[in-house]
Amino acid sequence: MDETALAPKETPHPFDSAVELTPSAPGLSIGHTSPAYNNIVGPYGGITAATLLKSVQQHPERLGEPLSLTVNFAGPITEGIFQIAARPVRTNRSTQHWWIELSQEGAVAATATAVFGTRRGTWSSTEITMPAVPAADDVAPLPFPEFIAWSQNYEMRFVAGSIPDSGTGHPDSTTTLWVRDIPARALDYTSLTALCDVFFPRVFLRRGKLVPAGTVSMTTYFHADAAALAKQSDSAVLATARTQRFGNGYFDQAAEVWGSGGELLAVTQQLVYFKD
Amino acid sequence: MDETALAPKETPHPFDSAVELTPSAPGLSIGHTSPAYNNIVGPYGGITAATLLKSVQQHPERLGEPLSLTVNFAGPITEGIFQIAARPVRTNRSTQHWWIELSQEGAVAATATAVFGTRRGTWSSTEITMPAVPAADDVAPLPFPEFIAWSQNYEMRFVAGSIPDSGTGHPDSTTTLWVRDIPARALDYTSLTALCDVFFPRVFLRRGKLVPAGTVSMTTYFHADAAALAKQSDSAVLATARTQRFGNGYFDQAAEVWGSGGELLAVTQQLVYFKD
Repeated sequence: MDETALAPKETPHPFDSAVELTPSAPGLSIGHTSPAYNNIVGPYGGITAATLLKSVQQHPERLGEPLSLTVNFAGPITEGIFQIAARPVRTNRSTQHWWIELSQEGAVAATATAVFGTRRGTWSSTEITMPAVPAADDVAPLPFPEFIAWSQNYEMRFVAGSIPDSGTGHPDSTTTLWVRDIPARALDYTSLTALCDVFFPRVFLRRGKLVPAGTVSMTTYFHADAAALAKQSDSAVLATARTQRFGNGYFDQAAEVWGSGGELLAVTQQLVYFKD
Repeated sequence: MDETALAPKETPHPFDSAVELTPSAPGLSIGHTSPAYNNIVGPYGGITAATLLKSVQQHPERLGEPLSLTVNFAGPITEGIFQIAARPVRTNRSTQHWWIELSQEGAVAATATAVFGTRRGTWSSTEITMPAVPAADDVAPLPFPEFIAWSQNYEMRFVAGSIPDSGTGHPDSTTTLWVRDIPARALDYTSLTALCDVFFPRVFLRRGKLVPAGTVSMTTYFHADAAALAKQSDSAVLATARTQRFGNGYFDQAAEVWGSGGELLAVTQQLVYFKD
């Protein structure tokens, strides 16, 4: 008797189920929204960004590792299947440029560009410093309301700028938290991409209330190489974000994601629409 | 006799000549590299970014003002003509998403995405503060070497982190300068886009020497509305930039552009390739 036939079939991590794509034609793949990663309206932006990156990662012509990703949230994504088209528009010796488009029934819901490339040892220097914070285990996790489905997949330990109490505005827009996947999952470029969108809208913090808000565009630069990801494994990362200017219906957000050992893994920025 | 017939024909500003585009077919236009905006190899990235934005601005289907622009520098641009394809991929009530591609003889040399949209009055707050600097007129302009053609079109008054003297590395990567077009020209979204790339590569400053370096991807968020641009007119803007991490052949750059009256006009970031 084959023992492996009796072994329980491993259940995929909810994150891997959510970003799963089935190739359907050259450069095209089919995905499906995952209720586990729903936001208040539509899917969590981070899972959409991660899925767009994945469409390139599993493309047969892909070369190298992710260097940068820009995602534009062009329209609502409704529950069900979607199609992603990924096309290498230019391949050089050390970089490869991609165009990516997510559509549902012919309507574009998200667009993206990505640059992949090879890394090699050079002079290095990190100029900014990781915020001085207590260790992750010394900070209590904060449970989010259950109706924010995607948040149930993350263990979030807020060090500064936690979810505001009703009606009390915060003097600044900085949020810093330790965060990792639930269940624990080793970090890769896909999950790092999703984590770059983990911050609730900065306007909530400043105003002390929920207002309509949604990301318009998001760009991530990946500093982590494969060794840094392996070293990080499934430990919590430290994520910190702030807004530089709010006004005229939009605000920016600048953020950094640090490895538990103090390595800067990614820098990311967003432009966010809001009403107030 | 018609006096206007005798008036000297106004010479266009070199910037306007450089970003000029001639529509050739629906969604397509033809441009030409401008020797006045050449960099050491190929055109100044800022002029390419501005030209890509212009292709949307003059598209008959364009709605609203620029909110964000991401430009990916995919390959060399050689002297001569180029073609730009601009396509609105999704138009919503308040935002419009664009895909833009610059090619020469069928090879893609740059890609971009842009979000245009309408601004409306909301709660506003600028959290960061303009660096404390002397007035522009109190800082001497620094002439760049003539072989850096594009720099001759800008009056640059360095307040911090000027071009390094040979061999002497600087302890940090921050550069702050007052800058405006030569000849003076009223600021618009196109010239603001170009100014967002005005910083020489941060690695030169830290290492105190020139090394091969080139922008891979650049994203700009436009905070300025039409009133802010009008108020700025042709005064110098204050531009400040720094790197967060250098390593593995790439560095990021985060920057802000401030109006002379202290208004944050744009925030911008880059990922830059370097050898060292």
